[in-house]
Amino acid sequence: MKLSHISELSLLENIRSTFPRRSRNIRVGIGDDAAVIKKKDQNLIVTTDMMVEGIHFDLTFITPFQLGFKLISVNVSDIYAMGGKPSYVLLNMALRRNTTTQFLDMFFDGIKEAMHKYDTTLIGGDLSAANKEMSLSATVIGYGKKYIRRSSAKAGDRIYVTGNLGDSAGGLEILQRIQMHVPLDYERAKMKNASGIRTFHSRILRMGLSPETAAPLIRRHLMPEARNPEPFIPYATAMMDVSDGLQIDLTRLCKESKVGARIYEEKIPVSPELMKAAACLNATPLRLALSGGEDYELLFTAPPGKKVKAIYIGDVMEKGMVIISRSGRGKTFPAEGFQHFGNKKDR
Amino acid sequence: MKLSHISELSLLENIRSTFPRRSRNIRVGIGDDAAVIKKKDQNLIVTTDMMVEGIHFDLTFITPFQLGFKLISVNVSDIYAMGGKPSYVLLNMALRRNTTTQFLDMFFDGIKEAMHKYDTTLIGGDLSAANKEMSLSATVIGYGKKYIRRSSAKAGDRIYVTGNLGDSAGGLEILQRIQMHVPLDYERAKMKNASGIRTFHSRILRMGLSPETAAPLIRRHLMPEARNPEPFIPYATAMMDVSDGLQIDLTRLCKESKVGARIYEEKIPVSPELMKAAACLNATPLRLALSGGEDYELLFTAPPGKKVKAIYIGDVMEKGMVIISRSGRGKTFPAEGFQHFGNKKDR
Repeated sequence: MKLSHISELSLLENIRSTFPRRSRNIRVGIGDDAAVIKKKDQNLIVTTDMMVEGIHFDLTFITPFQLGFKLISVNVSDIYAMGGKPSYVLLNMALRRNTTTQFLDMFFDGIKEAMHKYDTTLIGGDLSAANKEMSLSATVIGYGKKYIRRSSAKAGDRIYVTGNLGDSAGGLEILQRIQMHVPLDYERAKMKNASGIRTFHSRILRMGLSPETAAPLIRRHLMPEARNPEPFIPYATAMMDVSDGLQIDLTRLCKESKVGARIYEEKIPVSPELMKAAACLNATPLRLALSGGEDYELLFTAPPGKKVKAIYIGDVMEKGMVIISRSGRGKTFPAEGFQHFGNKKDR
Repeated sequence: MKLSHISELSLLENIRSTFPRRSRNIRVGIGDDAAVIKKKDQNLIVTTDMMVEGIHFDLTFITPFQLGFKLISVNVSDIYAMGGKPSYVLLNMALRRNTTTQFLDMFFDGIKEAMHKYDTTLIGGDLSAANKEMSLSATVIGYGKKYIRRSSAKAGDRIYVTGNLGDSAGGLEILQRIQMHVPLDYERAKMKNASGIRTFHSRILRMGLSPETAAPLIRRHLMPEARNPEPFIPYATAMMDVSDGLQIDLTRLCKESKVGARIYEEKIPVSPELMKAAACLNATPLRLALSGGEDYELLFTAPPGKKVKAIYIGDVMEKGMVIISRSGRGKTFPAEGFQHFGNKKDR
């Protein structure tokens, strides 16, 4: 059987049963955002994430700086999603031989910018050539006195997210139409003339959008920022980051916690920019918010009665996965979102 | 400038200066076999290594089981080379969509076999699709009360290796000629008929070699075993593993330690199998032993007067890199070995 015929979830299940946890020091093994190893008074929290050219990124859209920044952000996001504080980074890079040193310099600038932002240090890695596709991965090591799993949500808890959903998916849609590098801060500072900005503006206007609407969405896709969980650690019962889309990620959290969920359409936070852009993209903001990936907002649960500075979107139930429409009608929602090996469109 | 025009060493230097060490807890950062983080009474030792299809491995030669085993061995070898004990593994796999589940099962069997051998546990990782090349990496986390750097060899120390050199390079040469999977234990146990073994025997005999000579060399290339440094930890002053060839690796160790070395041709350990095979391979055993990579023996230094259960090959000097021939003539040796981005033949 080919991988394209089995789901990523069942492959993961296979790996989990093939490689059982063997030590009580491993508090969290395969299947959560990151692994947790108990070490005296601290927990060591470790994660690793890949970015493969043609699968996770397209160099037509993303600049080297943005790519470096994103590689660190997506990994830090997993440490944050466990309630940890990131500390150390290891970097693997398989690079095509025609990669230029200019490309690498800008890529490293992006990595540096993100590592500075998250207060982490590079401690190692590996370099290799690649014949066809650039392949990147980072391992991030963090620490935490406490850690927050996906599997500890309780019926009656409330469900929260830390920010707007769907922006990244909207940004990706726009990028796929304008087919160009979008100069954000770093690129603007480096640019000798404004032709890139002019081209960007004209292509966006041709789509019927304003640059002010498009740019924040594009930024969310190209340079996502991981959300620090610190304010929520005292009371969060379960937590993960929204990387593959709210529906699939909430389904995962509920499955791990053996609970259900009821969320409200009207409470799903959507940015004003996405509201404006959605019409041009032949998509509803809600659909992008529910199935679009790579927002990297935190999704977490907390008992009722807590003063939570995040956006309440629904409640943990005994079972069932239901979304309540604006008209009050309940609908079971499918675990729609990104799957790597399936035949669906990959990003 | 393209990567193919700069050396891997200078790229590494660039990375080291771009990303300075920022915390005193980081005892060893970029540039050694693994990173070391000081944590109370233990050191956390972390390494990550990639294996990219078409660069590090060729699926014409290596079976999925052997590939899985090797991926773990090469990473564990880096932990061992720091004097650490490996504990936890994270695995990144970017797989082509036409990869079969049978392939994966055998690959996981190889990983399991190696993880069992080194007493380690899988705690996480990432799965991705790949369009063209399979790309694998592992991160291994280990611990050690002590750690042994590359940079602490002293003039007057003696230089040791833990076993024969050049076998892996010899094995690779043979594989490139016979162009087939060589069934070792696992594959033999799985095989329904003996046709693979018969084909192997006939191709080897056609080269003028016996299967008994060829098999151990091939095994060293396909399923290298990492060497446990435990016996040497009490007195080793500097240590690394021989992954890119004795000459280049000893040069690295000496450069980091700011010393020189004098080694003796007649003391370089070469297996009887390599002696026999070398003639058919148009190479001298010495050349394979000096420049062949992937032996994964430990290379270390220790003060004189210690009873060291390893093979003495020479001495640490104030400066210069010299090899003494059997006739007693000294010759400066170049840092020959494997470089990823150069125009030399890649393996």
